[in-house]
Amino acid sequence: MIDPQRYPRLSRIQVPADLRQFPEEELPAIAEELRAYLIEQVALVGGHFGAGLGVIELTVALHWLYETPVDRLVWDVGHQSYPHKILTGRRDSIHTVKQKDGVAPFPKRDESEYDTLGVGHSSTSISAALGMAVALQRRGDERKVVAVIGDGAMTAGMAFEALAHAGGMTDPEPNLLVILNDNQMSISENVGGVTKMLGRLTGSRTLNALREGGKKLLGDKNKPAAKFVRRWEEHWKGMFVPSTFFEEVGFHYTGPIDGHDLPALLGAMKTLKGLKGPQLLHIITTKGKGYELAEDDQIGYHAVGPFDPEKGLVSKPGAKKPTYTDIFSDWLCDMAAADERLMGITPAMREGSGLVRFSKEYPQRYFDVAIAEQHAVTLAAGMAIEGAKPVVAIYSTFLQRGYDQLVHDVAIQNLDVLFAIDRGGVVGPDGATHAGNLDLSYLRCVPNMVVMAPADEDECRKMLSTGFGYQGPAAVRYPRGTGPGTAVQPNLDTLPIGKAEVRRNGSRVALLAFGAIVPAAEQVAAELGLTLVNMRYVKPLDRALVLELAKSHEGFVTLEDNVVAGGAGSGVAELLAAEGVLLPILHLGLPDEFQHHASREQLLAEAGLDAASIRASVLARWPQLLGAPAPRSAAL
Amino acid sequence: MIDPQRYPRLSRIQVPADLRQFPEEELPAIAEELRAYLIEQVALVGGHFGAGLGVIELTVALHWLYETPVDRLVWDVGHQSYPHKILTGRRDSIHTVKQKDGVAPFPKRDESEYDTLGVGHSSTSISAALGMAVALQRRGDERKVVAVIGDGAMTAGMAFEALAHAGGMTDPEPNLLVILNDNQMSISENVGGVTKMLGRLTGSRTLNALREGGKKLLGDKNKPAAKFVRRWEEHWKGMFVPSTFFEEVGFHYTGPIDGHDLPALLGAMKTLKGLKGPQLLHIITTKGKGYELAEDDQIGYHAVGPFDPEKGLVSKPGAKKPTYTDIFSDWLCDMAAADERLMGITPAMREGSGLVRFSKEYPQRYFDVAIAEQHAVTLAAGMAIEGAKPVVAIYSTFLQRGYDQLVHDVAIQNLDVLFAIDRGGVVGPDGATHAGNLDLSYLRCVPNMVVMAPADEDECRKMLSTGFGYQGPAAVRYPRGTGPGTAVQPNLDTLPIGKAEVRRNGSRVALLAFGAIVPAAEQVAAELGLTLVNMRYVKPLDRALVLELAKSHEGFVTLEDNVVAGGAGSGVAELLAAEGVLLPILHLGLPDEFQHHASREQLLAEAGLDAASIRASVLARWPQLLGAPAPRSAAL
Repeated sequence: MIDPQRYPRLSRIQVPADLRQFPEEELPAIAEELRAYLIEQVALVGGHFGAGLGVIELTVALHWLYETPVDRLVWDVGHQSYPHKILTGRRDSIHTVKQKDGVAPFPKRDESEYDTLGVGHSSTSISAALGMAVALQRRGDERKVVAVIGDGAMTAGMAFEALAHAGGMTDPEPNLLVILNDNQMSISENVGGVTKMLGRLTGSRTLNALREGGKKLLGDKNKPAAKFVRRWEEHWKGMFVPSTFFEEVGFHYTGPIDGHDLPALLGAMKTLKGLKGPQLLHIITTKGKGYELAEDDQIGYHAVGPFDPEKGLVSKPGAKKPTYTDIFSDWLCDMAAADERLMGITPAMREGSGLVRFSKEYPQRYFDVAIAEQHAVTLAAGMAIEGAKPVVAIYSTFLQRGYDQLVHDVAIQNLDVLFAIDRGGVVGPDGATHAGNLDLSYLRCVPNMVVMAPADEDECRKMLSTGFGYQGPAAVRYPRGTGPGTAVQPNLDTLPIGKAEVRRNGSRVALLAFGAIVPAAEQVAAELGLTLVNMRYVKPLDRALVLELAKSHEGFVTLEDNVVAGGAGSGVAELLAAEGVLLPILHLGLPDEFQHHASREQLLAEAGLDAASIRASVLARWPQLLGAPAPRSAAL
Repeated sequence: MIDPQRYPRLSRIQVPADLRQFPEEELPAIAEELRAYLIEQVALVGGHFGAGLGVIELTVALHWLYETPVDRLVWDVGHQSYPHKILTGRRDSIHTVKQKDGVAPFPKRDESEYDTLGVGHSSTSISAALGMAVALQRRGDERKVVAVIGDGAMTAGMAFEALAHAGGMTDPEPNLLVILNDNQMSISENVGGVTKMLGRLTGSRTLNALREGGKKLLGDKNKPAAKFVRRWEEHWKGMFVPSTFFEEVGFHYTGPIDGHDLPALLGAMKTLKGLKGPQLLHIITTKGKGYELAEDDQIGYHAVGPFDPEKGLVSKPGAKKPTYTDIFSDWLCDMAAADERLMGITPAMREGSGLVRFSKEYPQRYFDVAIAEQHAVTLAAGMAIEGAKPVVAIYSTFLQRGYDQLVHDVAIQNLDVLFAIDRGGVVGPDGATHAGNLDLSYLRCVPNMVVMAPADEDECRKMLSTGFGYQGPAAVRYPRGTGPGTAVQPNLDTLPIGKAEVRRNGSRVALLAFGAIVPAAEQVAAELGLTLVNMRYVKPLDRALVLELAKSHEGFVTLEDNVVAGGAGSGVAELLAAEGVLLPILHLGLPDEFQHHASREQLLAEAGLDAASIRASVLARWPQLLGAPAPRSAAL
C-alpha cells in the first residue's frame, strides 16, 4: 500500500478523475510524487525505468487535461506507460509488473479501459490513433485522440506511412494530436536521417530568434528590400515555417517545448486541445529524468532488475553462464575476423541482439538501421547482391515486420543472407507482443530457406557458421536467455546441411526434438528408454533419418517451442504423408493462443513443454511404455 | 525480328554497349524509336505499358551515361522496366513478356545480368541499392549504383526507412543516386502527405524564381536590411534550400527536371555522376508519354491486353463472367449500405482490389492509404477499437508486408477486422513476386484468426458477410480471376463458423478441398466415386466432420492452392494426430518452390492441381480405387 505520509497527493489518486480534482498549481508536486513512487516501485521489482521517468510531467498533464478514458490516449511501444498505469488504477499493483498474473509491461486492452491499444512493438500509435480518430469523427463523436510516440519509434516506416496518410487527408481533416517525445534516445542510440532532422529541428529555435531579430531591422515597410523580405517571409511561412518534415507531410507543428516544464507543456497542450486537424507537438525530454544515474546511463537503465535506489545498478561479480545472445555476439566478431565480407545489421537493437562489441571492433561493417526491419532485410539483400555476406540480427517477433522482404527480396532471389533470430519461441515476461512463437511456421513455408534451431550453445555457434557458409538464405533461431550450459568450441566449424543428430538410441517411440526443447526431451527419453533425435534442421528435414526411424519405431513425438500449427513437427508429418508412411505422431508444441506474460519456465510448463509434462503426454498416448523394459532414471 | 527500316538505330542496339556507340545528339532519335517499338510490341501481346512510356528518355540516358552492367541500375517495382529490357538483350523477345518461358514482367536476376535486383513489390529499390553501394564501397569498388523509384513507391514506409538510413550515414557517406520519377501517378491515384509534399516541391520553382528576383533588389550589401537578408539566406541555404523532405533526411536534392527533356536530363545526370554522397534527382514525367490515349487514361493503360495502336483499348461488349474481385466489389457496397460501421481500406489498389464503386458511393468511408500495407492494417485496428467495422482489401502477396501488424495489432488484441484477400494462391503471369502461395500457412499459425477460402462466387460473398459479422479477426482468401460461375445470391447471408460442406458422399477415400480447387476435386470425386468435402474453413477446421469422416474412410486427400508446408492440409493432419487417429493422408498442394510466371492454369497443372493430375495422384496412392465399384464419368 502506498504511504500517505510520503505521497500525500498520489495516495489520493486512484484514477485520473481523482487527479483532475487537484488545481493546476499542485500538478508539479504530484509529478514529483509520481516520479518518486515510480523509482521506489521499479527499484523494488525491476521493469522498464528510464522511459517512464521521462514522461512523468507529460503523463500528469495528459490525464489532468483530457477526460480519460473518454478521451483516448495511445502510448507507442509502451515502455513509458508505467506512470500512466499508476495513475489509472494500477498504482497499488505496479509492483507485480511483468510477473505472471501481474500488471503487463505494456498497455494491454484486457487490463484497463485506459489502455486503448495493446502495444509492445514500436511505431503503431499514429496508425491506430488515426483509425480511432476517423472512426469517431465518422459517427460524430467529439472525444479527443492523442498519440505519444518517441523519436526512436518515429524512425520506422509505418510511423511515416501514418503521418503521411493523416497529413494528406482532407474533407474532413482528422482531429488528432501526435506528441513526439523526443529524447534523442530509444533503447539504443538513435541513428539515421530522422535523428539528424530532429536535431536540426531542435536547433531551429536559433532560427526563430534570428527571424524575430530580423523584423526589427526592416525599417520602412515600403522600401523594396523590406517588401521583398516580407514577401519572402510570407512565402516562407506558408511553405517552410516551421519548415519541418511534419509540416511537409501535412501536420501542424508546435514546438519544441521542454517536456519537463509542466506550465509550458500545459500551455501548449491547452491551445492544441482546442484545435482541429492533425497536430504535432514536439517535446524534448530526458530519459531517466530525475534519477541521475539513469540520466547518465540511459541504455543501462532502460529496463532494470530490482536495485537499491541509493546505490543504483550494481554489476554482479563472477562469471555468468553465457546467454544465446552472448554466443551470437562472440561468433559475430570471430567470423568477422575470419571473413571480411561479413556485414552485421541490426534494426535498433545493438544491445539486445549482442552487437555492442562488433560495433566497436568493426564500425565499418556494422549497420544500425534504426527501427526499420523492412529496410534491414532488403539492405542485406542488396549487400548480398554485391558479394558481401550480411548477417541480420533480429528478434523473432520483430522479423514479422520484415516478412515480405524476407520472402520477396531474399528468398525468391535465393540471396546469401543469414538471419540470426534471437528470442525465438517462448520469451516470457514481455508478454504476447514479444513472443517468438510463430517463426518456425512462417519461415518453414518459404521456399529456399534453410531453418535451424540449436539444442545448445555450441550447436548455436556451429549453426551460425553453417548458415554463414551456406550460399543462400538461412536462419538460425535461438531462444531468449541461457541454454543447457554446453561448452562452446571457439572454432568456426560447420554442420552438414539437413542432418539431424541421434542423441540416444532407444526403442518403441522416437522423440524428434527441435531446438531449445532438446534437453527436456532428452531427459524424458532417458527415463522412458526412448530414442531421442536432436533434429537441428526445421528445413530441410533429415529425410533419410526420419524415414529410417519410422521403420524401427511404433510412433514419433515431435517437440518444439513453436505453435504446433504449421510448425516443425507438422513438417515431419508432411514428410511421412508424402512417403505414404503411416505412423502415429504426437505433436508437442505451443498452443494455438497468445501466451500472457510470465516467466519463460512458467509458460513452457503451462504449454506442457517441461520434462514432467512431456513425459506425461507421451505416457498418455503410449501407456504401454511404462511397462516396457526401459532404463528408468532415479531422479524421477 | 525488328524492322531495320522502321528502327534504323534501335535495330543496331542489342545491349547498352551498342547504345553507347551513338553520339549524344542521336539519343533523342533513339528514344523515339524505343518509344515506337515499345508501343508496337506491347500492343501486340499486352503487358505493362504506361510506366515504360514514361521512362523512355530516362532509360536511354541511364544506359548511355553509365557503364551497365558494371554500374548498377535498380528499378523499383519494375512496371517501367520494359524499355530497359529492350535495351539490354531482350529486344527481340519482349513480345513473350508474362508468358510461360518468356520474358518476365519485372526485372529478374536469373534473366539478365542487367537486372540487378528482382522486383515486383514496390519500394525496395533504395534499400537494395544502398546495400549494394555500401558493399561496393567497403571493398573499394568504384562502380556506380542508381535506383529509380516512382512517387507512388516513395509513399511506402520502407522507402522512407532507406532514405533516412542512407541520409544519416556518415564516415563515409554512401555513394548512391536515387532518381525520383515523379508522375503524380502510380497504379491508382496517389494520395496522402507525400503526394502533397511532392506537389509543393514541384511548385518550388516559383520560389527559386522569387529568390533570384530578390537578389536584384538588395542593393548596397552593407545596408542592415540587405545584411539581414543575406544572413537569412545563408541560414536558409544550409537549412532549407531546397527545403525538402529529402534534404531533411540527409540527401542532396537536385530538381525538379523535365524527365522527357533528354538534354536537360543528361546535363543533370552528368553532374550527379561526378558527385559523392547520397544524391536525389527529382524528375517529372508523364505516364504513358507519347501515346496520347495512355496519357489521358493513365490507370486504364497501366497494364493492357493486346490492342490496336491506332484505336487503343476497346471495351468488349457483352456480359463477362464476374471475377472474384467483382464479387467483393459488389458485396462491399451492399454491406456498406446495410451497415454504416463498415469502412473500406486499400493500400493503393483501388482498381485492382475492386473499390472503385465503393470509393464513389461512400467517399467518407473509403480510405486509400497509399502503398502502406503496414499502416493499412493498424489503421483498421484503430477503427475497430472505436467500434467501426473495417475491411482491409489487399492482395495476398502484399499482406506479407502487413504481417506483423496483423499479428500484433489485430490478432493479439482480437480486434474486429476483416481481411478481404484477393489473389490468394496461384496468380500466374506476374510471377513469383505476386504469387499468393503462402498465405494459408502464415495465417493459419496465428491464434484468434478465422481463415476462409471460398469454393465459388456465391460462397465468397457469404464468407465476406460471415467474416464481417464475426466479432474478431477474419480473412476471406480468394483467387485471381473468375470462379466456376455459380450464381451469386444478392443477400447478405452468412455461413456457420467452422462448418464444412459435404458436397458428395462417396466411399473409401474422402477429398477434403480448400477454396478454389474444389471444382477440380469435385470432378475427380465424381469420377472415382469418392467423398468430396468443401472445407470452407482453414481455421477453425470442422473438427467433428473430419473425425467422423476419418472413421468411415480409408484415407484422406487434402487439396489446396497453397504450399503444402504448413498449409490447410497440414492442419487436417495435425487434428488427426492430436486425436490419435491414424489414417493415410495425401496432401496435394503447391510445391516448396517459387513458381515462375505462366498462366494460372499452366501453373496449377504443373503443380499437379488440375483435375487430371489430381486423379492420377489419388490413383497412384490408392490404385485399388480403379477396381472399386464406383460410378465412372464418361467424360474421362
